[in-house]
Amino acid sequence: MDKFQMINEMAVDNGSKIVLLLMDGLGGVPLEPGGLTELEAARTPNMDALSQRGSMGLSEVVAPGFSPGSGPGHLALFGYEPLQYTIGRGVLEALGIGFNLQPQDLAIRCNFCTLDADGNISDRRAGRIPTEECVKRVEILRTIEIPGVEIFVEPVKEYRFALILRAEGLDPRIRETDPQMTGVPPRPIEAADPAAEKTASILGQWWDEANRLLAGHPPANSCTLRGYAKDPGLPRFPEVYRIKSAAVAVYPMYKGVSRLVGMDVIQHDAETPAQEFEVVKENWDDYDFFFVHVKKTDSYGEDGNFDAKVGVIEEVDQALPGLLELKPDVIAITGDHSTPSLMKRHSWHRVPVLIWAEWARYGKSMPFGETNCATGSLGLIRHVDIMPLALAHAKRLGKFGA
Amino acid sequence: MDKFQMINEMAVDNGSKIVLLLMDGLGGVPLEPGGLTELEAARTPNMDALSQRGSMGLSEVVAPGFSPGSGPGHLALFGYEPLQYTIGRGVLEALGIGFNLQPQDLAIRCNFCTLDADGNISDRRAGRIPTEECVKRVEILRTIEIPGVEIFVEPVKEYRFALILRAEGLDPRIRETDPQMTGVPPRPIEAADPAAEKTASILGQWWDEANRLLAGHPPANSCTLRGYAKDPGLPRFPEVYRIKSAAVAVYPMYKGVSRLVGMDVIQHDAETPAQEFEVVKENWDDYDFFFVHVKKTDSYGEDGNFDAKVGVIEEVDQALPGLLELKPDVIAITGDHSTPSLMKRHSWHRVPVLIWAEWARYGKSMPFGETNCATGSLGLIRHVDIMPLALAHAKRLGKFGA
Repeated sequence: MDKFQMINEMAVDNGSKIVLLLMDGLGGVPLEPGGLTELEAARTPNMDALSQRGSMGLSEVVAPGFSPGSGPGHLALFGYEPLQYTIGRGVLEALGIGFNLQPQDLAIRCNFCTLDADGNISDRRAGRIPTEECVKRVEILRTIEIPGVEIFVEPVKEYRFALILRAEGLDPRIRETDPQMTGVPPRPIEAADPAAEKTASILGQWWDEANRLLAGHPPANSCTLRGYAKDPGLPRFPEVYRIKSAAVAVYPMYKGVSRLVGMDVIQHDAETPAQEFEVVKENWDDYDFFFVHVKKTDSYGEDGNFDAKVGVIEEVDQALPGLLELKPDVIAITGDHSTPSLMKRHSWHRVPVLIWAEWARYGKSMPFGETNCATGSLGLIRHVDIMPLALAHAKRLGKFGA
Repeated sequence: MDKFQMINEMAVDNGSKIVLLLMDGLGGVPLEPGGLTELEAARTPNMDALSQRGSMGLSEVVAPGFSPGSGPGHLALFGYEPLQYTIGRGVLEALGIGFNLQPQDLAIRCNFCTLDADGNISDRRAGRIPTEECVKRVEILRTIEIPGVEIFVEPVKEYRFALILRAEGLDPRIRETDPQMTGVPPRPIEAADPAAEKTASILGQWWDEANRLLAGHPPANSCTLRGYAKDPGLPRFPEVYRIKSAAVAVYPMYKGVSRLVGMDVIQHDAETPAQEFEVVKENWDDYDFFFVHVKKTDSYGEDGNFDAKVGVIEEVDQALPGLLELKPDVIAITGDHSTPSLMKRHSWHRVPVLIWAEWARYGKSMPFGETNCATGSLGLIRHVDIMPLALAHAKRLGKFGA
């Protein structure tokens, strides 16, 4: 039996409330031997008080050595086995720009590129044109019309844009057109499966017209298409776990992933963690599960700014009493992957997890941090275990077998 | 290759002896932050002496967040993957009352219920009649005869009883008749698979007759049927592990599960742990593997009686020298799940494990308890790993591959 099915059969809606607080890229590494990670260096009296009455552990997001992207990181966090469930790149691109994707939509990542006089690609990224140049060309491309198909063209950043086709029966099994080298022409748009012939024909029409319109606009006088994807139709989070669920996030990507698994995404103007917690408070009576996403831990990690990442963690900690006064039954605090400032990128290092609940097995009294998590009473877990554990700690999972 | 097959190929019968000592529901949680679990609070000088020369670890019985029932807990303990192997509820009910189930038997959990004048269920549990009322009605139902089928009706407790049919070709794929609500009639007895038509017809005859006989005996004037199950035909423990195996248990359920996997179940009058160890002593020369089941740790945990659970653990410890003087090669001590007194129920918390053997890798010298187990030299394991580890520590598993 599928694990979701087992959990669904055990799940009971007892009205208890869970907050899953995610600091993106939370995990870190010390800058030198004997040093502290960002989380360990941060002054976090509120989280440390929770850890006295909670369980700590280290979590593997996907598998040892795997540095997760945002898609797998969040799927795992929500309990979807990231080696089994995937979100296609076109869909992630669309979610990242806040596009409201429909189930029938085909989403495609596109790059502007430069073609020389012979029709060969001379620059795969069109000289990395600035975003405002991207926007201008996107407006040109928006004039393309194909009967029976609704077409959306959306700028992303610099030479990148997204193309979304809306029609019944679109099929993502189309070959990528970027040859991954210069001096050759873009590859033709071809179906990789006979069922995708109609989609290939629509895309072919669009691309011919796009080339005609872009011809006079070097260096971005053509484009390549890849990452064709549709909504993967994931099991719906609120139904699997039998819990009324809402997401509070600032960035479009995380709102999009939450919507994709079926959570309600709360509209708000919050920017800081304290403001996000205020949004939770305003909606407290309407939901039993809140996913709260804090982005800037990851952003500063990517920048290599150790102190600023520490600062965001401290900001979250200072705002935490606003959450605690709501008296949730379970608070789980973790990241979707590690982003050590030292590395300026997502990494494979295990992620610290803290689960606070009345029914937690306390370990030794220790502040929340990677080193203490390694010997915590929660042990070594995987990210897909976090939701079942959070539900169990909220007494929302019945017995397995008699 | 199936894991049992691999273990079977590596297994050697070298005559060494293993005792698997199970304290039901052993794992616990502290009553307050900084406090101790039941096992940690108990004075256990003998187990602590074993832990000096043994390996400790924490074990996941099924999966994180899963609170195991007795069936999955024991299957996992015996090395049967509990997500793959299951024991049906009817079979567990029959084992729990000590019924000697045969391979062809179909076992069914039944509830007495109350039907109103219109034939609708007005009470799904027949007013929770006392057990002696249950026994009276079971005696009435025992008069039902169906040609070609041997029928057993056994009281369980209050409104619950078990029905076991014995005949060739019985099929458990029958729909449950309890509608899970009142104000509607019981659901009809129907085959869920064409192969079960004959079985459905037999059960239909039995139920019609049962209703006729019970009509004059409200509030238990009818009954519902569910949990249809047969012996799952599990791989046989003594053959898989190549070890002559016996079970010493006081309660019928654990004798039943042991018999189901093919162990010899020793008949005895023991009640206390010391008496159970005496039974092991009396049978020491006849077997190489002894499963010893101590029930009351779980019972007191379910009662929420922290001190009494501590008392049972201390009682086991005091009796332990009686086991040690037999000089087993390996002693493994664990539980089948946690039953924290604080929660008064089976829980998902990992279970402490201690394996003592000449060949154990000692960790730091620490008393046996959950917190120490979290950093023990055995690490974090799963319950299905306990048997392979016990066999390995008894030098009963050869090399895997050349």
